[in-house]
Amino acid sequence: MSFNTFGRMFRFTTWGESHGPAIGAVVDGCPPGLELSEADIQPWLDLRKPGTSKFTTQRREADEVRILSGVFEGRTTGTPISLMIENTDQRSKDYSDVAKAYRPGHADYAYDAKYGFRDYRGGGRSSARETASRVAAGAVARAVIPEVDIFAYVSAIGGDAIDFANFDPSLIGQNPFFCPDAQAVMRWEKLVDAARLDGSSLGAVVECVASGVPAGWGAPLYAKLDSELAAAMMSINAVKGVEIGDGFAAASLRGEQNADPMRPGHDGPIFLANHAGGIAGGISTGQPVKLRVAFKPTSSILIPVETVTRDGEASDIITKGRHDPCVGIRGVPVVEAMMALVLADQKLLHRAQCGERAETD
Amino acid sequence: MSFNTFGRMFRFTTWGESHGPAIGAVVDGCPPGLELSEADIQPWLDLRKPGTSKFTTQRREADEVRILSGVFEGRTTGTPISLMIENTDQRSKDYSDVAKAYRPGHADYAYDAKYGFRDYRGGGRSSARETASRVAAGAVARAVIPEVDIFAYVSAIGGDAIDFANFDPSLIGQNPFFCPDAQAVMRWEKLVDAARLDGSSLGAVVECVASGVPAGWGAPLYAKLDSELAAAMMSINAVKGVEIGDGFAAASLRGEQNADPMRPGHDGPIFLANHAGGIAGGISTGQPVKLRVAFKPTSSILIPVETVTRDGEASDIITKGRHDPCVGIRGVPVVEAMMALVLADQKLLHRAQCGERAETD
Amino acid sequence: MSFNTFGRMFRFTTWGESHGPAIGAVVDGCPPGLELSEADIQPWLDLRKPGTSKFTTQRREADEVRILSGVFEGRTTGTPISLMIENTDQRSKDYSDVAKAYRPGHADYAYDAKYGFRDYRGGGRSSARETASRVAAGAVARAVIPEVDIFAYVSAIGGDAIDFANFDPSLIGQNPFFCPDAQAVMRWEKLVDAARLDGSSLGAVVECVASGVPAGWGAPLYAKLDSELAAAMMSINAVKGVEIGDGFAAASLRGEQNADPMRPGHDGPIFLANHAGGIAGGISTGQPVKLRVAFKPTSSILIPVETVTRDGEASDIITKGRHDPCVGIRGVPVVEAMMALVLADQKLLHRAQCGERAETD
Amino acid sequence: MSFNTFGRMFRFTTWGESHGPAIGAVVDGCPPGLELSEADIQPWLDLRKPGTSKFTTQRREADEVRILSGVFEGRTTGTPISLMIENTDQRSKDYSDVAKAYRPGHADYAYDAKYGFRDYRGGGRSSARETASRVAAGAVARAVIPEVDIFAYVSAIGGDAIDFANFDPSLIGQNPFFCPDAQAVMRWEKLVDAARLDGSSLGAVVECVASGVPAGWGAPLYAKLDSELAAAMMSINAVKGVEIGDGFAAASLRGEQNADPMRPGHDGPIFLANHAGGIAGGISTGQPVKLRVAFKPTSSILIPVETVTRDGEASDIITKGRHDPCVGIRGVPVVEAMMALVLADQKLLHRAQCGERAETD
Repeated sequence: MSFNTFGRMFRFTTWGESHGPAIGAVVDGCPPGLELSEADIQPWLDLRKPGTSKFTTQRREADEVRILSGVFEGRTTGTPISLMIENTDQRSKDYSDVAKAYRPGHADYAYDAKYGFRDYRGGGRSSARETASRVAAGAVARAVIPEVDIFAYVSAIGGDAIDFANFDPSLIGQNPFFCPDAQAVMRWEKLVDAARLDGSSLGAVVECVASGVPAGWGAPLYAKLDSELAAAMMSINAVKGVEIGDGFAAASLRGEQNADPMRPGHDGPIFLANHAGGIAGGISTGQPVKLRVAFKPTSSILIPVETVTRDGEASDIITKGRHDPCVGIRGVPVVEAMMALVLADQKLLHRAQCGERAETD
Repeated sequence: MSFNTFGRMFRFTTWGESHGPAIGAVVDGCPPGLELSEADIQPWLDLRKPGTSKFTTQRREADEVRILSGVFEGRTTGTPISLMIENTDQRSKDYSDVAKAYRPGHADYAYDAKYGFRDYRGGGRSSARETASRVAAGAVARAVIPEVDIFAYVSAIGGDAIDFANFDPSLIGQNPFFCPDAQAVMRWEKLVDAARLDGSSLGAVVECVASGVPAGWGAPLYAKLDSELAAAMMSINAVKGVEIGDGFAAASLRGEQNADPMRPGHDGPIFLANHAGGIAGGISTGQPVKLRVAFKPTSSILIPVETVTRDGEASDIITKGRHDPCVGIRGVPVVEAMMALVLADQKLLHRAQCGERAETD
Repeated sequence: MSFNTFGRMFRFTTWGESHGPAIGAVVDGCPPGLELSEADIQPWLDLRKPGTSKFTTQRREADEVRILSGVFEGRTTGTPISLMIENTDQRSKDYSDVAKAYRPGHADYAYDAKYGFRDYRGGGRSSARETASRVAAGAVARAVIPEVDIFAYVSAIGGDAIDFANFDPSLIGQNPFFCPDAQAVMRWEKLVDAARLDGSSLGAVVECVASGVPAGWGAPLYAKLDSELAAAMMSINAVKGVEIGDGFAAASLRGEQNADPMRPGHDGPIFLANHAGGIAGGISTGQPVKLRVAFKPTSSILIPVETVTRDGEASDIITKGRHDPCVGIRGVPVVEAMMALVLADQKLLHRAQCGERAETD
Repeated sequence: MSFNTFGRMFRFTTWGESHGPAIGAVVDGCPPGLELSEADIQPWLDLRKPGTSKFTTQRREADEVRILSGVFEGRTTGTPISLMIENTDQRSKDYSDVAKAYRPGHADYAYDAKYGFRDYRGGGRSSARETASRVAAGAVARAVIPEVDIFAYVSAIGGDAIDFANFDPSLIGQNPFFCPDAQAVMRWEKLVDAARLDGSSLGAVVECVASGVPAGWGAPLYAKLDSELAAAMMSINAVKGVEIGDGFAAASLRGEQNADPMRPGHDGPIFLANHAGGIAGGISTGQPVKLRVAFKPTSSILIPVETVTRDGEASDIITKGRHDPCVGIRGVPVVEAMMALVLADQKLLHRAQCGERAETD
């Protein structure tokens, strides 16, 4: 696995910087014969697209994807699928501040320490713009796992959580926060707007559920489904925590509280609870796969923070430019995409190792 | 990366089941010329060793490691290092219950669903016994990163957390809980003993800090240091959550609260806070790398839980045998080992890509 | 390693079909700070470019490369380098013959057997056009190994070999055959032209030498330098044989004939022979790395061959279109590129594992 | 892929030195439910075992394999299979000569150049003894591909080739040379014995055929079946050349001579020739997969060769000890094992990517 590739059998490699001519992904290992066109990818990109409300960055990108290879007469051929999205709204602003001083919380200092210099325009490779490539690749992954249904939503912003008593999944696509709780939507409008007007930003929690995953995907240890999902989610910009099922809450439980009892059902066992998030021993159980992801607040803020310059001088910095006041919001389609990418990979891996069983059972 | 291998340049592969003749690990990619003998590995294994107090499983294993290859005249040769630990106390108990019915929370059902059958003796490959191999491999990793100091501790058991005002690192090695808070030790003795006597079990939180990591290890996205650490920690049996730095707490903060301000220092910048856990943009900043790991309560309990048999019949199951009442406790040396293994790998990866810079700077 | 990726640390992934909109490569793991622009890549592509003489395909492609990412202010940043070459001369010919029947020697039947269908336009992914992506990636690799000098040449066409007594490296760039023997050039002009006029094709042998490789690159077994080079060369379209050093000729020798005796020199030992092709025990010795590659004759010929159709009917097929009468000729820059790509990767791998030694020696 | 691991889905990692306590392999990714015991592996090891005739090394090793994990009640469980072979006849001879001076043709100098020092006892990791681990792993691979029949033989020793007119496969197992030509056996007895008595050694060519490989295994480019096989074969000690199908001979042919014409058959097309060695476009065609491998003469000879010492002094060296006069002979079971290992891997990879097609066709 290289630095910019994710996956084992169904793999994708992303490339591109915030202010370069384009960004993209190459998807390798996709099964042949799947129906795929730009029209299958674009809707997911549109969900992630910037500039759609005042609660996201005001950068305006069409985010139009082009398929450059791997599809013939509307179907995947089994060869690499090259996806490209041109950057169109790289504003030619003055980056001299960012070039000279390090924005705390940002990749700036670490990049310089590692590579000796950095493409500072819009954050370069560390920009959340890279996640558009993931969303495009994720749309291909969805074609590999039609049996799986994935949805994600924001469950908390700036510490203000939804009330699960109000949970209404039909709301998720109807508000700018991907929020399933109508009352939280009203509160968050004020909360996020206030942070935006303050030049500040907010963290968020995103939750994701995949139903339809059959029992048997995953592997015992280093390729545990939990581990693959954690790596996938933690690879998203600004993510600093991942929980599978009950996660940290399980650490407060006793064994009998955390058990997911089983009863006989028509098609295998029925589980009476899902503390495990649909994964036991690293392998899916047939229950919904559930996880939670913590996004830190956007590091780029208009409030001055103490920093140092490249030359080692003390300085204060404020980060102008167009930024998401809460980067977790647009994280929702990205989390979904990473879930799809991991599950597509696991499906193929399971078929590779245990395919004969499946055929003979 | 295969199912039982972890790492990119410094890689290890583990093998073995709880009740097979032995378990082990093969470490590949280790630099040559490092001093290494069994005596460098054994102390770490002894920390993880079962049967040392009433708060851990009563299985008695010497856990004596043998180096079978890759070391010559006391130094690593650069070739694979084969480590083997013989199993000596596989009690020949009656496993017919476990063979027939699925223990909720355990890997039993998922293994059967994936592989069609399973080695049910002592949990087979899914037993926490596998972690001894990691601890042995981790000891080799420590030889690769002498500049790094790693320590972990239990910060909560069953929801009862330590008070950081009482934090005394010298206590960690002096109690059976790897606990840095003397008052918590006293409480936990009662708490864990009560759970043990009830035939129940408890979850725990383990925290780990690595100091001495220079700025520059890691990579921007899919090989983000956060992502590698999350995968490593989540690959440990019973782990269901990982946080880097402030983790989920960061999701409740505003941008200016979460920033780690920088001031000029003698050897590069000084950070005035460490919300990021020592990693920005996926790359180490030179601050201590910090993470938290959630262990669920041991699934094997003596309290009956509803389940189904392999034949699909309803049943109740209690799991006899020798089990840890709180598997998170012995997770401490395992978390340390995984931290060491990730950092050793990252050191080599950084040297590969940016080594010339290091030499010329 | 996925299906369309090569390398371990310095990795590249290619994508694209002969008659799609573009082809390209993503280079990952490149060290930062190297000077790189399109002008460093284009000359190598121009060497491989079709349509430059009557001895190559008459397809006319400008083969202009664009760098889409990973370079900032003229230097590599350490992030993925995306290279794209647009296809401009995909002739909209009638492919109904190829769509219906299998061209013997071609990938047609095997692709259908594997994937169920194929992009038959110009050979799709199996077209030698893919090698342009390798040549572009190879130019990046050259920047990683400035200490190494690589050159390749054609040593035989259709069984007619050069005479090493006539070997003049300055000739290689001065004739359409990359031939170092002036007399062979004259013979080959007639030979290749005759084959071309017959509608036939010819096989060829390409030899490649890399000097300046220091002792110590490679690894003992599965990452043997011999093995990496063999995989690299054999991955080129139409290649069916690889020899390192004396190769098959060594199988006819006795031990004392095949030994490369050593004498003391100023900077380490001097070798009195190079039967081993610069590699002993899988690791470079400091001698020139030498290999030979066999290209089969182009499968696309105008002479009818017996075949079957997709529907299983007997048929005869002739392959119209624009084809190289000897695909090995344009294989020369491709072989050089693959040599550069392997050596760049090996340099980084060696630095990763043994870098500390290098620094302290 | 790490330095001592081979394969993508069906992977094995070998470890061990010639004069350490043991050698072994860990096989990962093996499908579950396959019947496997030591008795399935031992016969293949016995074929490779040293000391069985005067034409092989006189080291006497029982080469008894133990399965330490991954098998339960006689069937593979899907978890890693650890195979160990103890070394029993490491003769405690005086290695001071080898420790001090470099044996030309051997790995000695290159190891020192790379790693700074080496385990010189019996060649350490570079000893052909490592191939026993491959043969053991190869026996597991055979269980994965029961549809495939593999056989290899020696086709030439020291330049003296068999006559294919005399080819009798039943002879292969009946003489110490794995030779299918009774007349060649008689000649080789004298030839090899003479070399042995001279203290010299001979090179050899080994050919291998796998029948029963269905059409569709492999991949277009970097995972071409040709490329995987070349890497596998070239990773064997002393191998310096690999040909697929006609190999270098194809470079002397014209297109119409090299074509493998097709005619309709009952189960897909029938091929009228097999110049391609059963692989077109990197993918199997259903014809027998055929390859040839060149082994150089054993480097360890009793005839003095000029060399240098570690201290840079001129010296002559003769290599005492117990060595194969023709290492290619015992290469036969190793080549077969590598063929099995590659094909098992390719079967699983094909199932992963194209499994759904297989199920629906």
